Amino acid sequence: MNRPRNDTFLRALLRQPTEYTPVWLMRQAGRYLPEYCETRRRAGSFLQLCKSPALACEVTLQPLARYPLDAAILFSDILTVPDAMGLGLYFSEGEGPRFERPLREEWAIRDLAVPDPYDRLRYVMDAVAEIRRALAGSVPLIGFAGSPFTLACYMVEGGSGSDFRHLKTMIYDRPDLAHRILSINAEAVTQYLNAQIEAGAQAVMLFDSWGGCLADAAYREFSLAYMRRVVAGLIREKDGQRIPSIVFTKGGGLWLEAIADCGCDALGLDWTIDIGAARRRVGERVALQGNLDPNVLFASPEAIARETRAVLDSFGPADTGHVFNLGHGISQFTPPEHVTALVNTVHEHSRRLRGN
Amino acid sequence: MNRPRNDTFLRALLRQPTEYTPVWLMRQAGRYLPEYCETRRRAGSFLQLCKSPALACEVTLQPLARYPLDAAILFSDILTVPDAMGLGLYFSEGEGPRFERPLREEWAIRDLAVPDPYDRLRYVMDAVAEIRRALAGSVPLIGFAGSPFTLACYMVEGGSGSDFRHLKTMIYDRPDLAHRILSINAEAVTQYLNAQIEAGAQAVMLFDSWGGCLADAAYREFSLAYMRRVVAGLIREKDGQRIPSIVFTKGGGLWLEAIADCGCDALGLDWTIDIGAARRRVGERVALQGNLDPNVLFASPEAIARETRAVLDSFGPADTGHVFNLGHGISQFTPPEHVTALVNTVHEHSRRLRGN
Repeated sequence: MNRPRNDTFLRALLRQPTEYTPVWLMRQAGRYLPEYCETRRRAGSFLQLCKSPALACEVTLQPLARYPLDAAILFSDILTVPDAMGLGLYFSEGEGPRFERPLREEWAIRDLAVPDPYDRLRYVMDAVAEIRRALAGSVPLIGFAGSPFTLACYMVEGGSGSDFRHLKTMIYDRPDLAHRILSINAEAVTQYLNAQIEAGAQAVMLFDSWGGCLADAAYREFSLAYMRRVVAGLIREKDGQRIPSIVFTKGGGLWLEAIADCGCDALGLDWTIDIGAARRRVGERVALQGNLDPNVLFASPEAIARETRAVLDSFGPADTGHVFNLGHGISQFTPPEHVTALVNTVHEHSRRLRGN
Repeated sequence: MNRPRNDTFLRALLRQPTEYTPVWLMRQAGRYLPEYCETRRRAGSFLQLCKSPALACEVTLQPLARYPLDAAILFSDILTVPDAMGLGLYFSEGEGPRFERPLREEWAIRDLAVPDPYDRLRYVMDAVAEIRRALAGSVPLIGFAGSPFTLACYMVEGGSGSDFRHLKTMIYDRPDLAHRILSINAEAVTQYLNAQIEAGAQAVMLFDSWGGCLADAAYREFSLAYMRRVVAGLIREKDGQRIPSIVFTKGGGLWLEAIADCGCDALGLDWTIDIGAARRRVGERVALQGNLDPNVLFASPEAIARETRAVLDSFGPADTGHVFNLGHGISQFTPPEHVTALVNTVHEHSRRLRGN
């Protein structure tokens, strides 16, 4: 039996009725938790933590031990895929992720190939399987990947940039090369997510962290089109259970209708859009995930409860189609005890809205 | 006579017919120009450059000597206002602007006062007057200020941050203190812009660089409401000429209708929204300014011309209501000769669209 005991999250994504609104937090296994920092210290580095299935499993479960969250998310990094393509991922203190060999030369782009997820990404599948065993049917496990465009940002820039000018120059001057990278990325991400599903992921999410930096036409052609391709290639059912997919473009509020038509089951929302307005725009096509400003978690528990209720009230009294989350990953500076106020408010207030 | 010989820019803002689409570039007097770097070296520092009316005038005119731009913009910085409030502005290499005394304590917030624009900001008015004399009636001069919220971001954070968590914590925990800062800022910005108008500015622009980081309800309450207050307090006519106002929230694409109703004459657009879609949303209420992705300027002149035409085509064949600009300030890494391709294409293609 593949269905977890608490399947509220999966039902909400598939727009089936739930007793309350499920909640999880982007980057819920992260630096705001002292136990995470302790495990990371033991691992030696962030990358070694990602690459050890036992330690990745350990940190994945940490937030579930503290809070009654309705889903676990694989602890990993979106850059595992370009790393497996041979670009040489490393993390330099204070600068974030970098690649030893950024993708700028035409010959290197021609040579780029889809990595076998069962070869150089085996450690991710081992982590998925180990986490599933450890969860023991309690809550569902989410797998994830970066969007083809977001991966290309890091691959071409060589790290995180603020304007992505190398990739954008390529988009405007040599769109053929940009499309070549994005096609490879789309195929790589599809195979990678399908391998996660085969290993036990019960829902998958595409993180398009940087698509929102594109001009309207460029977003549609260079980010959304490739996410559509990934979603179309995903395994839709495993062991008789549907595997829902979530697509999240940070800063994508202008394109909600278009994203909602990409074939995904749910739309991730950042905090800049009112979730009720988003729901009116996309109608019943997809579920919505989001969208509290992560900075609300720095305020008092009373303010956190008030702002959390405001998101639930704006979504309205429907008994499905909403997965509560932050509008972006939780900040490393968040006081861990503040998360309790959020999670409890989501559960209590959403039951109240349903008249339960 | 207050009307410049080339008043295309002013007429487009007021939605009067023009023979072609006027163009200027945010940060057009800036580091991408070698002559700017030379003047800045002579000034000693960025702040001394801002504070010297003669040198500010010199750099304001530099881009006009190179390109047939349709407007000049005062060379200054949005942080002159909090500097005049006594927060101690300084620039540290590689880190951007910082304040010696960030505004965090309740007593300091209570003590905050509106600075007299004719006292500690006199150098700005002197620069405006000197630039007007130097322009000698050729093209209009734009004055500007940061939005009350954007100034508050720097004032409370103490510099540029990525998440603005101190100000956001105040917004959620102590909205009374945030409103106090924003009220003072709104009054200071109103007086500051009116003094610029009295000194000779022929249009004014509010830069809301960071409003787009706010949640929907918070944007309306903590950024837009105060820009509305500023716009309502502006001098609307000087020497028989209407003084148009432009409001620009970067990342504000979700709020266009609301911004268009704030009383301004024109809306600045960043590059993420299709300008034709923006026009359909706001109708005939306001003119639009924008919105080419500044990164297009890294591509070849052919690609720059193609993308520039695409913006003009998307706006459509109307003979007014569009001021061409970038969707954000020009990058310091832009090759200066690429700007020529943009400016010429705007003038030529917009004449063609009008059948001239």
